[in-house]
Amino acid sequence: MSGDRLMLDGAAGDTIVYRAIGLIRTPWLRVEDVPVQGAAAPDAEGRIEVHQDYIEGLLHIEGFDRLIVLYHFDQSGEVKLVRRPFLDDEPHGVFAMRHPARPNPIGLTVVSLTHRAETTLFVRGVDMLDGTPLLDVKPYVPRWDAFPDSAAGWLDVSPDGPKREGRE
Amino acid sequence: MSGDRLMLDGAAGDTIVYRAIGLIRTPWLRVEDVPVQGAAAPDAEGRIEVHQDYIEGLLHIEGFDRLIVLYHFDQSGEVKLVRRPFLDDEPHGVFAMRHPARPNPIGLTVVSLTHRAETTLFVRGVDMLDGTPLLDVKPYVPRWDAFPDSAAGWLDVSPDGPKREGRE
Repeated sequence: MSGDRLMLDGAAGDTIVYRAIGLIRTPWLRVEDVPVQGAAAPDAEGRIEVHQDYIEGLLHIEGFDRLIVLYHFDQSGEVKLVRRPFLDDEPHGVFAMRHPARPNPIGLTVVSLTHRAETTLFVRGVDMLDGTPLLDVKPYVPRWDAFPDSAAGWLDVSPDGPKREGRE
Repeated sequence: MSGDRLMLDGAAGDTIVYRAIGLIRTPWLRVEDVPVQGAAAPDAEGRIEVHQDYIEGLLHIEGFDRLIVLYHFDQSGEVKLVRRPFLDDEPHGVFAMRHPARPNPIGLTVVSLTHRAETTLFVRGVDMLDGTPLLDVKPYVPRWDAFPDSAAGWLDVSPDGPKREGRE
């Protein structure tokens, strides 16, 4: 395919290199304790600690009720393209679930912003392990991000709840 | 801070390496033509072409009306921590906007899934440049992702529209 900026020949495409821009502090010290999603633990308080070098980039972030947080699952375990997830007994593909062990282990959580103090964002609804490396923070914008009536496949019939026994 | 898995000393944190898992095909061939967000061009049709190695990971993805697509802004230009965005005349921090030129240039768009054929996902609402490297696909789950009443700061008073003159 001439004209491509990226050639996909072989097992993987071009290497993409990022750097952590901060850390996420949460009450969750062990993988076993982490809730299935932030919205399933809306009162869990955490802090997003952005590195001092990026403080200017936080200008006017206080106006947003919610933020989209992207982070690196640095303890996500073995990648399996198909697995039985925490919330269901049937196997599903990794791109049809939010499991942390993904080909590119990028996590995404929508959190509520309580307030900011310098480079620290105080948030609620955290579901990351304490110490998780931060990749990006984006403003949550309902007209771009909120689709309350969207069908959610197998997740529409599997309610949030404790992780099932024997799942990883 | 003992116990940290990641030390942030100096300008940047640990290096994180990902690989493209596919390509995104869209009608947008030039940066100038790309709409401000997918939801602002809901009928724009595109294809997510997942590399053959990952086909199993797509199992049951057809059940979801919408997908969260993460991709690498490979032509995003100079990173500025504060800039006047496409949709407003006031400067804002990069973490309070969705501009592509970010410290880690990861893009996020919620797209509608029309159908799947093998490794190709046919979608609507694309706002990526044609040929953009794909990082991840996640199912959109309203109970975790949809917050229609969330305040969106300066973006609540700046409607979607054409990009303003002289912005980049």
